[in-house]
Amino acid sequence: MKDLATTAAQTQFDHDSAAEARARQDSLTKPQGSLGRLEELALFMAGWRATPRPRIDRAQLVVFAGNHGVCAQGVNPFPQEVTALMVQNFRSGGAAVNQLARVAGATLSVVALDLDRPTADFTQGPAMTAAERDDAMAQGAAAVDPAADVLALGEMGIGNSTVSAALCLALFGGRAEDWTGAGTGAEGDTMARKIAAVATGAARHQGLAPLDLLAAIGGREQAAICGAILAARASRIPVLLDGFICCAAAAVLHAQDPALLDHCLIAHASAEPGHAPLVRQLGKRPLLSLDMRLGEGSGAAVALSLLRHAVAMHDGMATFAEAGIA
Amino acid sequence: MKDLATTAAQTQFDHDSAAEARARQDSLTKPQGSLGRLEELALFMAGWRATPRPRIDRAQLVVFAGNHGVCAQGVNPFPQEVTALMVQNFRSGGAAVNQLARVAGATLSVVALDLDRPTADFTQGPAMTAAERDDAMAQGAAAVDPAADVLALGEMGIGNSTVSAALCLALFGGRAEDWTGAGTGAEGDTMARKIAAVATGAARHQGLAPLDLLAAIGGREQAAICGAILAARASRIPVLLDGFICCAAAAVLHAQDPALLDHCLIAHASAEPGHAPLVRQLGKRPLLSLDMRLGEGSGAAVALSLLRHAVAMHDGMATFAEAGIA
Repeated sequence: MKDLATTAAQTQFDHDSAAEARARQDSLTKPQGSLGRLEELALFMAGWRATPRPRIDRAQLVVFAGNHGVCAQGVNPFPQEVTALMVQNFRSGGAAVNQLARVAGATLSVVALDLDRPTADFTQGPAMTAAERDDAMAQGAAAVDPAADVLALGEMGIGNSTVSAALCLALFGGRAEDWTGAGTGAEGDTMARKIAAVATGAARHQGLAPLDLLAAIGGREQAAICGAILAARASRIPVLLDGFICCAAAAVLHAQDPALLDHCLIAHASAEPGHAPLVRQLGKRPLLSLDMRLGEGSGAAVALSLLRHAVAMHDGMATFAEAGIA
Repeated sequence: MKDLATTAAQTQFDHDSAAEARARQDSLTKPQGSLGRLEELALFMAGWRATPRPRIDRAQLVVFAGNHGVCAQGVNPFPQEVTALMVQNFRSGGAAVNQLARVAGATLSVVALDLDRPTADFTQGPAMTAAERDDAMAQGAAAVDPAADVLALGEMGIGNSTVSAALCLALFGGRAEDWTGAGTGAEGDTMARKIAAVATGAARHQGLAPLDLLAAIGGREQAAICGAILAARASRIPVLLDGFICCAAAAVLHAQDPALLDHCLIAHASAEPGHAPLVRQLGKRPLLSLDMRLGEGSGAAVALSLLRHAVAMHDGMATFAEAGIA
């Protein structure tokens, strides 16, 4: 996976295209800067797609699913079988992300990673071997359509908010309870066990190099997200990260090299309580704040519509000269 | 116009439909409440459209344009001719709102209100007579497609951020400089003249009944916005209000009866500085915060995409029973 990261880091924002896009923005029939973040998004797309007039003809949303050994600690009110049932729901079109991806005009890809073979319980030992992590990263990279203009990422996995909280605690420190939220609905004793598992896992594995930490605590879907982020970068495809679980996976890459996330946007501010401090660590400002906390790529799908507004505005507007306004 | 307001106030949110929609929401394949404001929006649409499965088959965006006598005070760096030029730009498809409405799937209607006959300068006397106000309100009401499922409102009018600041100051008090922003680009002496005009106009006309204040200070496009809001209510059409100018118009109705805006959403938090205190007065939480300050209905168009995500999610998702998840 080192090669993927190296290639990714070599692919840089194209400042010439962005400067041309900026010049175009400033000639369009509106006060300069008056479309705020829509203008920023158009320039962001221009620089990463390396064209002054970027378009979104092809948008892909990938949902990665995995199962987690830490569920043995009783951290979740739902059994792990729900992961496979929800994957079935994605495939038959009944989940939230199906509807949201359709509105946003994204093709939905679902990648289930060894659901019948959960990772090991990270409170007892490493969740994955290096080979398992690399395999999941490679599956994530392979899922990316290199012809896409934008990639939205999502995930499903009973237990993965526990995994994400432990990753954040190990990466950034603090208290286990500050990173641990209800996820799909943990409360009372379940919540207490969840916090304890997060604390135990982070204490056991902290201090490892980022990708080793990913193997020690992370899920296959999170390794796949890392692989997809890197593969997208190599194809100049901007990435919309969904909420807490997606961003926790991305935080591993950020810990390795913050520039690895330069082509990524945080789609929304999740209501999962660990997301706000995580977003601060990643140094990015979410596009939306809608109290969402579902995962599945639901926030990324909605944010994709914002990107569509931004590039359509940028590409379709008349300049002052074209409109005959002096 | 009294009749329009009376009919409007009689049209109420349908709690039965909203309760049915809530029951459906709670049966869908996701943790209850995990889609946050998207769920609220689906219920909002259900109650106002009086159906537990609302749809957006027909969305309308109306831009009202007017000219303003207060421009004689030198409050704007652009001449009033720009209003007509931008209306031409809307009609030929080159403005921001054309692109944004297309992405959001809205039909764009442009209503230019007597552009060659600006209102009177409100620092010297009333901007409009009662008859002129009523005529503009009636034009606004007539512009609403009664078959629309949702209405997004926008405006254009050189000088209308001055008008809006004066309306807010007269309605809510405070200091002229707190309600007055750059608009299309006022700075230096222009900004000083703008603040002075706002203070003079508000002092001259404050204390009037809301609709009399609308005539004394407001623009034709703002009276039309009020008419459109009331007409939409009578047809159970939820309304997306754009930024500062739109909300300042709506504030007149709010001052008359806060319930008159129950069917309205504030699309976005504008970067125009008067908008944040105005939003607090209206007691609503904007859907988006993207540093936009263009007007034209640009923020309302983007927010319409959020509504589309919300109703598609609500209508299209499988229940736990349908997905075979116990």
